[in-house]
Amino acid sequence: MFKMTFLGTSSGVPTKTRNVSALAIQTGQGRDWVLFDCGEATQHRLLHTPLSVRDLTAICITHVHGDHCYGLPGLLASAAMNGRREPLLLLAPKAVLRWLDATIECSELFLPYPLECRDVAEVSVAEVSGCTLSAHRLSHRVESHGYAIERVVVHASLRAEALRAAGLAPGPDWKRLQAGETVTLPDGRVLAPADFVEQRRECWRVVVGGDNDDPGLLADACRGAQLLVHETTYTEEALQRIGPGPMHSSAARVARFAAAAGLPNLIMTHFSPRYQDEGPTTVAELAQEARAEYSGNLLLARDFDRYELGRDGVVRLVAEATIANGG
Amino acid sequence: MFKMTFLGTSSGVPTKTRNVSALAIQTGQGRDWVLFDCGEATQHRLLHTPLSVRDLTAICITHVHGDHCYGLPGLLASAAMNGRREPLLLLAPKAVLRWLDATIECSELFLPYPLECRDVAEVSVAEVSGCTLSAHRLSHRVESHGYAIERVVVHASLRAEALRAAGLAPGPDWKRLQAGETVTLPDGRVLAPADFVEQRRECWRVVVGGDNDDPGLLADACRGAQLLVHETTYTEEALQRIGPGPMHSSAARVARFAAAAGLPNLIMTHFSPRYQDEGPTTVAELAQEARAEYSGNLLLARDFDRYELGRDGVVRLVAEATIANGG
Repeated sequence: MFKMTFLGTSSGVPTKTRNVSALAIQTGQGRDWVLFDCGEATQHRLLHTPLSVRDLTAICITHVHGDHCYGLPGLLASAAMNGRREPLLLLAPKAVLRWLDATIECSELFLPYPLECRDVAEVSVAEVSGCTLSAHRLSHRVESHGYAIERVVVHASLRAEALRAAGLAPGPDWKRLQAGETVTLPDGRVLAPADFVEQRRECWRVVVGGDNDDPGLLADACRGAQLLVHETTYTEEALQRIGPGPMHSSAARVARFAAAAGLPNLIMTHFSPRYQDEGPTTVAELAQEARAEYSGNLLLARDFDRYELGRDGVVRLVAEATIANGG
Repeated sequence: MFKMTFLGTSSGVPTKTRNVSALAIQTGQGRDWVLFDCGEATQHRLLHTPLSVRDLTAICITHVHGDHCYGLPGLLASAAMNGRREPLLLLAPKAVLRWLDATIECSELFLPYPLECRDVAEVSVAEVSGCTLSAHRLSHRVESHGYAIERVVVHASLRAEALRAAGLAPGPDWKRLQAGETVTLPDGRVLAPADFVEQRRECWRVVVGGDNDDPGLLADACRGAQLLVHETTYTEEALQRIGPGPMHSSAARVARFAAAAGLPNLIMTHFSPRYQDEGPTTVAELAQEARAEYSGNLLLARDFDRYELGRDGVVRLVAEATIANGG
């Protein structure tokens, strides 16, 4: 089902190995994908992935802070220069749309494709690539939203025994019933699909949080979700020391919420640059803190990691970074 | 003298190996450096160089097109988050300053250091890090400026024979004369530095062009310059095929100008992504075209190349890219 490629996992500033926020989710419909946040140099990260901006169908921006949106104008401009003509949906807070308007105007940026801009405070649900996107209000220093992406897959299986009992041999009429059509037999009997087709609805749902100091605000969004991706900027101890000013979440806080919400998978991201991969203060501290609160499938994102949400509902790492994390 | 580090050498869009425009010039005064243009991900490039944004004293933006300035807000924001408190000078066309104002306002960007913004159309000369920066109007689709950075070094050498003839033995008075002070001897004679000190003025000057279809506009700026760095987007054949719309320069055009201006060193940069390092169409074509017109020291910039303008007036490559060009 959904495939998640992390393009940036650092908060505030880029580091040598982690860029600022961006997450690509492949929707499962062809090569389509949706981008969540677009920190500076997101387009540069994309050059080292199999993802093409030609297949991008929507961009969801969580909030206007630069580490989540300063890459937007460059990505849109490069898409234009690379020949994109397909429409693109942009869901974002009003401040982001105002900034983009100013950028387009001041820098004489011409986009030769339709960019449909929607203020998430007014239109918080959209359909794209066979999925439903919905926005959910969070708590941060500026207006911030999390997003849920949901895909409903309906499997229609024929009740073969019932069909045979009705005297219908396997053939084109079986296919028509399976496709939801009514079938009239030569003897005049009418067979309705509801009597012969069993429908099973699978609902796949991933929630991507923006910057947020209150994960509980995503309780409704997470109902039925297999995965939450949430910022985990600090340990609880660091958060207490820094104070509530930055309005971010700690590993403990996110993990406690994920446990309470019964989420089977949790990916933490958006780590303060103080947490390196090696050294005195590492992301392992965040993992340790979260594991004390959450016994589900806990994952810590790294740039270029690609995860897949399997049919069994388990999120697994399917590809690791294969390129050097150059500038 | 000046050290030039290329942080981006592609035009329009980044490639896997070349970022969009940015050039750092170390002024020779301590660790100070000046940045010319700031395409998206310039701050990411800097992470892989010895340059620190703490030592950056001025930013000169040539024009408002995104590949020359979209990295500006992120670089300024990261400098703030990394603790910069020193003032910073920004020379740029009005459109860039308007865009930066809008960015600061919309994205609630707080800069805890004084950013002195000057519209180059109004104030085209500035003193910084012991150098003079001057802006020179170019010809492009939008207002575009080239910049000259100049440093005058005065060497004062004592005329030892004349001093000895005047009866002054080597000692502290020699140093005082060399420093420009008048010396009164015990016998009442007054020695003026002008009579005993020979001054030699060295003038070091580098010109950095912005996007421009008429290199001749830099004739005045290049007088006495040791080096011109100029955009070379296409070959003349490609430029003719594409037509004058983009308002860029060809290798032939730039090289012809450098020859006519008697410039000893020419670095070409800002290559269309169609010219790769390997493949059917390469930057070697641009070099070949330029060499037919220019017999001076011709260099083609690559990302992370560091060049030095030597005391002999020759520009030499002193460091090549040592990191993988990741995203």
